Amino acid sequence: MASSGGEHHEEAEDSYGDAATIGALRQLYAGYAWADVASLGPESSGRAVRVRGAAQAVRAVGRRVAFLVLRQGTATVQCVVAGDGGGGMAMARFAAGLSRDRWWTSPAPCRCRGTPSAAPPSQQLVEIKVEKLHCVSRAVPALPIGVDDAARSEEDVARAKAAGEQVVHVGQDKRLDYRVIDLRTAANQAIFRVQCQVENVFRQVLLSEGFVGIHTPKLIGGSSEGGAAVFKLDYNGQAACLAQSPQLHKQMAVCGGFGRVFEVGPVFRAEDSDTHRHLCEFVGLDVEMALRDHYTEVCDVVDRLFVAMFDHLNDKCGKELEAIHRQYPFQPLKYLRTTLRMDYDEGIRMLQEAGVHVDAMGDLNTEAEKKLGDLVRDRYGTEFYMLCRYPSAVRPFYTMPCPEDPRYSCSFDVFVRGEEIISGAQRVHVPDLLAAQAAARGIDVASIATYVDAFRYGAPPHGGFGVGLERVVMLFCGLGNIRKTSLFPRDPRRLAP
Amino acid sequence: MASSGGEHHEEAEDSYGDAATIGALRQLYAGYAWADVASLGPESSGRAVRVRGAAQAVRAVGRRVAFLVLRQGTATVQCVVAGDGGGGMAMARFAAGLSRDRWWTSPAPCRCRGTPSAAPPSQQLVEIKVEKLHCVSRAVPALPIGVDDAARSEEDVARAKAAGEQVVHVGQDKRLDYRVIDLRTAANQAIFRVQCQVENVFRQVLLSEGFVGIHTPKLIGGSSEGGAAVFKLDYNGQAACLAQSPQLHKQMAVCGGFGRVFEVGPVFRAEDSDTHRHLCEFVGLDVEMALRDHYTEVCDVVDRLFVAMFDHLNDKCGKELEAIHRQYPFQPLKYLRTTLRMDYDEGIRMLQEAGVHVDAMGDLNTEAEKKLGDLVRDRYGTEFYMLCRYPSAVRPFYTMPCPEDPRYSCSFDVFVRGEEIISGAQRVHVPDLLAAQAAARGIDVASIATYVDAFRYGAPPHGGFGVGLERVVMLFCGLGNIRKTSLFPRDPRRLAP
Repeated sequence: MASSGGEHHEEAEDSYGDAATIGALRQLYAGYAWADVASLGPESSGRAVRVRGAAQAVRAVGRRVAFLVLRQGTATVQCVVAGDGGGGMAMARFAAGLSRDRWWTSPAPCRCRGTPSAAPPSQQLVEIKVEKLHCVSRAVPALPIGVDDAARSEEDVARAKAAGEQVVHVGQDKRLDYRVIDLRTAANQAIFRVQCQVENVFRQVLLSEGFVGIHTPKLIGGSSEGGAAVFKLDYNGQAACLAQSPQLHKQMAVCGGFGRVFEVGPVFRAEDSDTHRHLCEFVGLDVEMALRDHYTEVCDVVDRLFVAMFDHLNDKCGKELEAIHRQYPFQPLKYLRTTLRMDYDEGIRMLQEAGVHVDAMGDLNTEAEKKLGDLVRDRYGTEFYMLCRYPSAVRPFYTMPCPEDPRYSCSFDVFVRGEEIISGAQRVHVPDLLAAQAAARGIDVASIATYVDAFRYGAPPHGGFGVGLERVVMLFCGLGNIRKTSLFPRDPRRLAP
Repeated sequence: MASSGGEHHEEAEDSYGDAATIGALRQLYAGYAWADVASLGPESSGRAVRVRGAAQAVRAVGRRVAFLVLRQGTATVQCVVAGDGGGGMAMARFAAGLSRDRWWTSPAPCRCRGTPSAAPPSQQLVEIKVEKLHCVSRAVPALPIGVDDAARSEEDVARAKAAGEQVVHVGQDKRLDYRVIDLRTAANQAIFRVQCQVENVFRQVLLSEGFVGIHTPKLIGGSSEGGAAVFKLDYNGQAACLAQSPQLHKQMAVCGGFGRVFEVGPVFRAEDSDTHRHLCEFVGLDVEMALRDHYTEVCDVVDRLFVAMFDHLNDKCGKELEAIHRQYPFQPLKYLRTTLRMDYDEGIRMLQEAGVHVDAMGDLNTEAEKKLGDLVRDRYGTEFYMLCRYPSAVRPFYTMPCPEDPRYSCSFDVFVRGEEIISGAQRVHVPDLLAAQAAARGIDVASIATYVDAFRYGAPPHGGFGVGLERVVMLFCGLGNIRKTSLFPRDPRRLAP
């Protein structure tokens, strides 16, 4: 392991230096317990611990002292490397040299053995007095983007500029080009921890209600359920494409006897539109279930699921939401204990009364959806609601018409902060009706024969919904751009990293 | 709603018939509580309930009585439609006609209102006396495969043939062609419920140990980490391929500050080999984590994770394992409380002592792995063990060599019943070493520049492993063919359904 230069005594080399392997440090730090930075508190005072993290900031004070901020995920701790430590002044110099980028050697994991002590009158609760310090991995001296720059809020940038200060603003594209650095900001650390919780609540609530988690194939023969742009590929000589949704296969799983199923998996759309809410690859949260009496049983699941999810995020992810809020300020989502449901007709009426021109049997455009969201929030005090019973004409051919009036359908959309997030419906499980509805929309029935035939071997009445994981997080946290909630986003232009 | 023919009185139509919509039945069955078939027991006797399920078997006894076996998932209940019910003899005739395939109308969900009563001297604990009966969905009269035929074990087929009986044996390909029917067998219902539990234990154990669940992109620029066959496609004019593993992106997530991550998602291999253990698309369970002292920390995670998983399956999925066992008999997996770890060298020695010719610095072939599995089971009493410290030459270029002897690597494989199931290792996080190891193996370093560069912005020492969800279930249950544990398998020839 040993150090880089030849200037230290053996004793000093045991105290600091570059470590060639982590195994070599094992003996050197024997007897000192590993600690997580997040778990260090005033009660740790006096304990001898080992920690490892990225050197987030390094600052030398004269020749005898260096300060090192160590980061693990979202937690940081200040480490003091003083000339009176085991390695003497040389260790302080070694620490100061860890960062050649003057402010950040962000990803140079270091190992400290120190004594957490009650903190000096700063914000931090604990400070580590470093007795040994070894660097186990060095980054290039100058990172293409700085973590501190990437972590700056728009507000801070504006404030600094107003004060005539020079600050670096890292644009969205550059962040994504260097995503591995960008992900280290507190906001990004929080966003993807929140995302993980969203998925986990989704799964746990559904499992507790008797749903079975499944995995359907993403490689599909032909071209999905017809319609929109798909990614095509050659599959050992057969024409194939990437699934635009697990629609058919989740329905087949229900017909295959599983009754209630869910899936979490990638969904592929060869979108050409570069918007704030579309990706070419996203994570779909899908549900499909046999129905007893009515399609609103699917709405009941959505209601229980999302109220539980929002509650969980507010109750258990306070720290993460705060970290996101610091960089991207947002208002907490307003939602009711029982989710508001409105018929589509009533939504149309509200818009018309507010002077918005909308076609009662047509679809709502993004602007009208936004406006309706405002109206609903003002009247009912919620930013999360369901719009039910859409006109049949604006829904896919496999949507079940309302028995009492087939101009309307057993379908619904769910909105968060005025943006559509979930689309759901009862499906047509009767092959002849399915074929007729396809034909009425000008779809070549032969091209969807596989889909129609799947229901000839028996199908219970069923329905379901789909929602994008990235959209849930984006809209719950008011993030405004879906690229912020995709770990490595894929949009019409971006295929890397 | 009403019935099909015109022969019934209005009163009779309220009692039985084809229901046009489920909503229409709501009023007719008002006041009768829904029940799950699985929850019906002797204590249900006398209660008026509604159930719905597939008509698994229908049998008429004379003109006055019909017996109907109703199935929900894995549970069944016998229903008696007698001439003294609300619909009289006509209802019994209606019931008898539900199945035109003489034995099975498997997927014609029906709704009964009846009174569970203590069972007659049969195997079933409960029987429903039907008072109303409506069919909500009809299948084609003759299904291409019968659920009872698909459910027959090899043993039963052999026994019947020996006795000179005619029984239908449904081959693997035909099952898969009609997967939506095949999935209804008790064994298949159980297999995918077990699979769901395997995934859930994987996730919950990792979440409890501070791992973050992530989703990495499946659409990749260029051609993955080089090497094996990939599915290629056009991405808006850019050359792209489907990810063969989340290897690089899960490593980037660790370097991006998440420390410990896992992913459950599809993995694509354009395999040309048609074996019992390969699929072109499977579900990967992936883990990657920063290391403290040694790569065996990854082995520790595997140990805790899989022992917890196997315990959970044995403790909580007894009914499912039994259902699988009935069709596909298997011996319970032998595993130890603490998983056996052996160095590769020791495995080689055991094989050589047993007279098997193996190259100490080469890879084990499938046959040698199987043999070693037998030797280990006989000596140590376990069919689940880890083989550590593989020769560097047989591992990928990104595997960290052992610091004390670079001919060996910080890597391991895990075996279940003599088949490799998990591959894991510490990764090289030092860009220069990574490039050198690639070059030494004849890989064009320029072609993997993205991979190598990813570590230049700082990377903690880290390692991880990957395992296929389908293989875990296949090997735990000794199923012998991976197509049995994939809901809709994709192999070199199969792209449907």
